[in-house]
Amino acid sequence: MNTSASRLESVVREIAEEMRARPDRGEVATYIPELARVDPGAFGLVVIDADGTVAAGGDSDVPFSIQSISKVFTLTLALGMVGDRLWRRVGREPSGSPFNSIVQLEYERGIPRNPFINAGAIAVTDLILSRHKPREALGEILRFMQVLAQDSSIVIDEAVAASEQRTGFRNGALAHYMKSFGVIENPVEYVLGVYFHHCAIAMTCRQLATAGRFLAHAGRDPTTGHSVVPPERARRINAVMLTCGHYDGSGEFAYRVGLPGKSGVGGGILAVAPGKASIAVWSPGLDAAGNSHLGRIALEALTRRLGWSIFGV
Amino acid sequence: MNTSASRLESVVREIAEEMRARPDRGEVATYIPELARVDPGAFGLVVIDADGTVAAGGDSDVPFSIQSISKVFTLTLALGMVGDRLWRRVGREPSGSPFNSIVQLEYERGIPRNPFINAGAIAVTDLILSRHKPREALGEILRFMQVLAQDSSIVIDEAVAASEQRTGFRNGALAHYMKSFGVIENPVEYVLGVYFHHCAIAMTCRQLATAGRFLAHAGRDPTTGHSVVPPERARRINAVMLTCGHYDGSGEFAYRVGLPGKSGVGGGILAVAPGKASIAVWSPGLDAAGNSHLGRIALEALTRRLGWSIFGV
Amino acid sequence: MNTSASRLESVVREIAEEMRARPDRGEVATYIPELARVDPGAFGLVVIDADGTVAAGGDSDVPFSIQSISKVFTLTLALGMVGDRLWRRVGREPSGSPFNSIVQLEYERGIPRNPFINAGAIAVTDLILSRHKPREALGEILRFMQVLAQDSSIVIDEAVAASEQRTGFRNGALAHYMKSFGVIENPVEYVLGVYFHHCAIAMTCRQLATAGRFLAHAGRDPTTGHSVVPPERARRINAVMLTCGHYDGSGEFAYRVGLPGKSGVGGGILAVAPGKASIAVWSPGLDAAGNSHLGRIALEALTRRLGWSIFGV
Amino acid sequence: MNTSASRLESVVREIAEEMRARPDRGEVATYIPELARVDPGAFGLVVIDADGTVAAGGDSDVPFSIQSISKVFTLTLALGMVGDRLWRRVGREPSGSPFNSIVQLEYERGIPRNPFINAGAIAVTDLILSRHKPREALGEILRFMQVLAQDSSIVIDEAVAASEQRTGFRNGALAHYMKSFGVIENPVEYVLGVYFHHCAIAMTCRQLATAGRFLAHAGRDPTTGHSVVPPERARRINAVMLTCGHYDGSGEFAYRVGLPGKSGVGGGILAVAPGKASIAVWSPGLDAAGNSHLGRIALEALTRRLGWSIFGV
Repeated sequence: MNTSASRLESVVREIAEEMRARPDRGEVATYIPELARVDPGAFGLVVIDADGTVAAGGDSDVPFSIQSISKVFTLTLALGMVGDRLWRRVGREPSGSPFNSIVQLEYERGIPRNPFINAGAIAVTDLILSRHKPREALGEILRFMQVLAQDSSIVIDEAVAASEQRTGFRNGALAHYMKSFGVIENPVEYVLGVYFHHCAIAMTCRQLATAGRFLAHAGRDPTTGHSVVPPERARRINAVMLTCGHYDGSGEFAYRVGLPGKSGVGGGILAVAPGKASIAVWSPGLDAAGNSHLGRIALEALTRRLGWSIFGV
Repeated sequence: MNTSASRLESVVREIAEEMRARPDRGEVATYIPELARVDPGAFGLVVIDADGTVAAGGDSDVPFSIQSISKVFTLTLALGMVGDRLWRRVGREPSGSPFNSIVQLEYERGIPRNPFINAGAIAVTDLILSRHKPREALGEILRFMQVLAQDSSIVIDEAVAASEQRTGFRNGALAHYMKSFGVIENPVEYVLGVYFHHCAIAMTCRQLATAGRFLAHAGRDPTTGHSVVPPERARRINAVMLTCGHYDGSGEFAYRVGLPGKSGVGGGILAVAPGKASIAVWSPGLDAAGNSHLGRIALEALTRRLGWSIFGV
Repeated sequence: MNTSASRLESVVREIAEEMRARPDRGEVATYIPELARVDPGAFGLVVIDADGTVAAGGDSDVPFSIQSISKVFTLTLALGMVGDRLWRRVGREPSGSPFNSIVQLEYERGIPRNPFINAGAIAVTDLILSRHKPREALGEILRFMQVLAQDSSIVIDEAVAASEQRTGFRNGALAHYMKSFGVIENPVEYVLGVYFHHCAIAMTCRQLATAGRFLAHAGRDPTTGHSVVPPERARRINAVMLTCGHYDGSGEFAYRVGLPGKSGVGGGILAVAPGKASIAVWSPGLDAAGNSHLGRIALEALTRRLGWSIFGV
Repeated sequence: MNTSASRLESVVREIAEEMRARPDRGEVATYIPELARVDPGAFGLVVIDADGTVAAGGDSDVPFSIQSISKVFTLTLALGMVGDRLWRRVGREPSGSPFNSIVQLEYERGIPRNPFINAGAIAVTDLILSRHKPREALGEILRFMQVLAQDSSIVIDEAVAASEQRTGFRNGALAHYMKSFGVIENPVEYVLGVYFHHCAIAMTCRQLATAGRFLAHAGRDPTTGHSVVPPERARRINAVMLTCGHYDGSGEFAYRVGLPGKSGVGGGILAVAPGKASIAVWSPGLDAAGNSHLGRIALEALTRRLGWSIFGV
């Protein structure tokens, strides 16, 4: 099904207005103190289709902390560096438990279930660090985001990074635990330093939707023609997003939205309609599983109105 | 991407031949004694596209025990009876654990994670039993399969059902455990009796692929025009198959095959390419997660050659 | 420290009066419907010292359902039948979890942690059943209690047994689960039938304290001179009672009371002061760990006033 | 039962000789590299009775790393500082899992099950640190050991402490995890620094048996008359040692030895025969649960020959 640019723009505008008006907004994450200051009324939505049409609604140009959405890009970067050997360190099965659970690590000898729970993303960060010095690793990740988003103004929010570094004891536990099994190679403080910083990258919906286009289009940005990954790798990253991208709410997201997607506790979600569009949505209030409450509802409305579910029309 | 009938037929034949020749065949399930007698060299593959073209390879007309694949159809039937109230009794998140794990039930007070692990399918069977007497419930399920497969010769393999009934203590534990939380309404023996019997339905790849067509085509069999479920329900069943259809190998199946699918320990897999085709494959040898070893490999080859992954071309 | 008979009698009377007067009585178990009818105000205490002096207070001659206290006696009986081979089927470590947890069984392949959690006692009952027909096995257990208590009037409360049989689905799950690992040899219904019936034996504090004397006196009843078990076995049963006798409150009981003891959800506790006395207490209200609330408090008062803790004066 | 000094001395000598001759010695711990260098043939045993008679056998004056035995003394010290408020931070139930398990912490929101598993001892160390600066806290602990052992030459083995600090990532995980729940007040590095150092205290069997005498004698050293804790606290520490002192082998130790005791991965065990004696044994080879293999066997022989089990003669 092809969607005309004007139809797309009107659907996006409608949804942005509906979401603005809803009283149910979820709960803004408070465990990272700096994130708790965000306006819970914010809502942004950007869809970029195969032709490059950008349909934007709401706070589409307000930067927010991408948090765990960065895990999609560090996974992409690390796969580019070490290839499928990455999967010796990280699994690709849904975890059946919350984003920061440590129980599974004990039963599976330090190997995290997938790269989109915290432990898995920390292990991926460690792989990047084994190829770069800490400062360079972080620079590499940030530059990758800037290139994908075609915007060199993207920066790390140092206040958020510092806030996590002061309070991220649970992530500290995960990293030390994996280190005790030899799954982490580099010093724990370095790994966590890079991890906290790449989670603290601030982006707008417009930038994020642009950065995600290669996943919707066989690994290549259809406007620049720039090839980021081979087509098979793009499909596979999408598959991991679908089964693991929303922690213990991944089944629910697949059931309601029907698109591969990755959420962050900053309230953002990057979603991919293969062959059709790259989508970024942002609303800071979270549901019980730690995913953006209105973000998911907006995406459900979008895929239903446009018939974009990958599970059938 | 549209696939011509002749291209489809030649791809299916090629794959059937390649699979026949492979020495690695997995391990035939032995925990149900009756299943252990199957020929490990068997392999069948049937693909039925939107136009009704049937491409068949290998042992496509040999009946096998569909086992857990029946869970897709009992879920469909139960949703038709009680609607979304079904989800009060069963979740729809991946379990992160083997097909017969009982641990999760203790932590989540008797509510199984999804309808495709044993506990979940037992709870679904109980819902059907609350609407029918035991013998009628089973008749209802069997008739549903016959209608979908357009073949009234489909029967239950009583030897397999009896074999499970004599040895299915793990399922007995799951059912009693859920009963202790009030999740099961009917007497445990009745529920297990119906459950073991619907798992023991014997079908060929051809029959199974026919029965699954409504899931590929918005809830309707495109040849008969018979509407089985509304389009949204078909999409949602597909979503649950993708995230939960292969037990603790669901992530792997999504990653490699890229289609919603449901496996059974008899070695069958039903897979769905939305808008394109319904697919049934059978090879009795299983991998470590309890899914058909060659079945998965055949489906991976198929989706790669035809570009059918739902995660992009 | 030796305690004069008159001092013992006055301490027991004091404590019985204090307990009668307390407003905090815990919660009577309701999961076995028949048990929920008991008067929560009941309190009985009987201490029998090495000389045979019986100090009794409160409802010392009112029969109550001994429930899990029977596990001490079935363990003793089974050890007499199969010796230390019993420990191939049951461990002897504290469980770190509630009395009816099934999680541990999955991680330890069906071997229960100790004979005093439900799963362990069911496995012990199965061992007795492998030596006797169901009805005989139960007769054997009942006669053993009658002989130890020197009272042939002791009977099984059939209403309680029937009540458990109708509602004991959690125990049904444990038994089926162990059966699936081959830890249970006999048909599950037989094992559970005997188990529910021996838990439903009704005894008074006087009878129970008499029955426990062999544990306090090197395996021999000091009045009759009847040797029940060798001295080492008596010590070892006491050790298992201390570490495992109060489910996930065993540490607390050792910390506060300082005696080996076994509780039942009927509100009874059998405690042993090695070399000094056998003690039975009964008060139906339970604490959060499922042990008699006032029973534990009464025993703490008793050991403190008499200096009977095994952990020092 | 009273034991003459000469009988005690000959039993201790006999046992030391028998243990020296045994070929089965367990496995020396290797996870702390520095500990792996110890002679696996070493064996020492010292018993000090109520009269102050010292019966020594084998390598009774060779210092070894006391490791987790230090947990008994830090618990004693912390109870002296904060009293029973300590139990708000640490439980007193057996864990049912290995010494370094992190699973339980997730289910119980960061509260360790008891002060004798690693997590619990780290939480106790944190309590001491809240009253003292890091260097002072460590000095306080060391001085406490020197006073109890009446030997100011006792020191910390800095090589062992440094070795743990370099490799103790599992403990780092436990500490960070508790910190994330607010159970740890002080900076994690400080807490771990003090913890690793007090585990690295080196003592001989003679020193250790002397230091433990207050636990055998109602809280008071019977020779110096120095009161360390009130009698009730001594009993209670003994109770926690019995139920929790040997990790997931605590039930086995109670069953076989029948005394409160605390083991360390250095191969030492401190055991207490209330009213009778304080006992220290050392043999570096460990069993599967991480407790001294020959140490336990020697103590079993000792209590059997002397009739010292707390569970009856």
